[in-house]
Amino acid sequence: MRNLDELTITGEALRRLSETPDPRIKQIMVSLIGHIHEFARDVRLTEGEWLAGIHFLTRTGQLCSDVRQEFILLSDTLGLSQLVVAQNHSRPGGVSEQTVFGPFHVEGAPKRPSHSSDIAEGVSGEPLYVTAQVVANGQPVADAEVDTWHADAEGFYDVQDEHWSVDNAWLRAAFRTDADGRISFKSILPKSYPIPTDGTVGEMLAATNRSPMRPAHIHFKVEKEGFDPLITHVFAEGDEFLDSDAVFGVRGSCIGDYVRREPGVTPSGEKSDTPFFTLDYRFTLQPVA
Amino acid sequence: MRNLDELTITGEALRRLSETPDPRIKQIMVSLIGHIHEFARDVRLTEGEWLAGIHFLTRTGQLCSDVRQEFILLSDTLGLSQLVVAQNHSRPGGVSEQTVFGPFHVEGAPKRPSHSSDIAEGVSGEPLYVTAQVVANGQPVADAEVDTWHADAEGFYDVQDEHWSVDNAWLRAAFRTDADGRISFKSILPKSYPIPTDGTVGEMLAATNRSPMRPAHIHFKVEKEGFDPLITHVFAEGDEFLDSDAVFGVRGSCIGDYVRREPGVTPSGEKSDTPFFTLDYRFTLQPVA
Repeated sequence: MRNLDELTITGEALRRLSETPDPRIKQIMVSLIGHIHEFARDVRLTEGEWLAGIHFLTRTGQLCSDVRQEFILLSDTLGLSQLVVAQNHSRPGGVSEQTVFGPFHVEGAPKRPSHSSDIAEGVSGEPLYVTAQVVANGQPVADAEVDTWHADAEGFYDVQDEHWSVDNAWLRAAFRTDADGRISFKSILPKSYPIPTDGTVGEMLAATNRSPMRPAHIHFKVEKEGFDPLITHVFAEGDEFLDSDAVFGVRGSCIGDYVRREPGVTPSGEKSDTPFFTLDYRFTLQPVA
Repeated sequence: MRNLDELTITGEALRRLSETPDPRIKQIMVSLIGHIHEFARDVRLTEGEWLAGIHFLTRTGQLCSDVRQEFILLSDTLGLSQLVVAQNHSRPGGVSEQTVFGPFHVEGAPKRPSHSSDIAEGVSGEPLYVTAQVVANGQPVADAEVDTWHADAEGFYDVQDEHWSVDNAWLRAAFRTDADGRISFKSILPKSYPIPTDGTVGEMLAATNRSPMRPAHIHFKVEKEGFDPLITHVFAEGDEFLDSDAVFGVRGSCIGDYVRREPGVTPSGEKSDTPFFTLDYRFTLQPVA
């Protein structure tokens, strides 16, 4: 086919998919091409806008590294990530809900014992004592892998520091639950923070006058054979950004009580001369069908 | 808003655009988010497919450099580029038509005199003598800039060679038309060729069992104040890929006669002992409204 115009080109582009061997790839490509073409016609995209889009995507890719994933951040801020999470994890009531993975997880976080670690060693902030239990069907889940990561009091993850290496990680750890399904650790209180705005996602947020703020949270990934993996956050009850999360990730069942305590004995049995916070949270897994 | 599901998230993502100051950016973002969400719901995108897409886009960006633009190639092969070209350059009959820019143009091509240059110096191939005239309203257009670039007999552009630099370019030149609107140059006959398949676009073509072939062509960019810039190709009449161009770029008015000639006197007045080809083509510009 030659002499394709802005209408006839879509049919021709779809015909070119007719020999696609994998039916799922074919289905995805047919829908993708249809929607991309429809978008370009719908807004009557100009060549200058098209080129700006090419450059935006190129720079987004080039900002990505082992420790930064700008395309995930873009997907998060466009609401795509949470949409995909939601449609793949419709969980029955009483089971912990899934939320966005975010761009700051890394494989190989330092392994820590089930109890008594301080994952914030030397990072300044208000002390936080976390206790958590993993359960399913009302029973504790022993030996589950619990990966956790969170930002510091200024909103930065360790991987955003130029001196970071995975062997020298902070505010990040991998635990295994004990026989009673429990873990505990000491850290610092997470705060609400802006997502990174020094890249293309920041340009998009600025151009649309959107807030980059996320409510305070700790990320958790909980995995155990026989159960649907759980990737979630525990948000802080009362945070002012719970209803305007820049990445659309807040679920009511993922909000925990970060309780302020007066100086005294901490959950780990130490004595604290300053106020501290505690979080006690329960993750409920869904057995694999 | 919290507890967003795969349906309610779209409304919330669109509401977040309500403070966008520029109405055009708002219009584009509303349509883009709507279509991306619709696509993800339409195919019920899984998290694994989403992550594969993130990695595909990331690698596409990271393949881009000063001399390679994999996102343009992706846009070309999805039919988006030609769609955008077509909807922005609906030209009256008799005026040269626009086609895709492609990923291989570079700024600052070597300037050559209007006539008598050999832009293929030392590149092996069948000799080609090109004569062209730029006209508008039936009159020659003097002093127009004519940028040209094309692939060698194996289908490679100079910029794909690791030893390339813009000061040492080949099969690429910038001319100005003479008083009669004419230029001429010697080169080699372009051949049909596969677009680069060693990147993400190649993966996409392989997964969809699509041909990477483009019909033989020479690129031209013709610019003169007072006229709509013309970015086009001159394809070779009779090429077997005219109806299956991997980037959907063939327009009937952009096909030229690359005529095979027996040994004898060439258009530049030399004597050739071997057969050679000639192309005589006329570009008709559209005055700016």
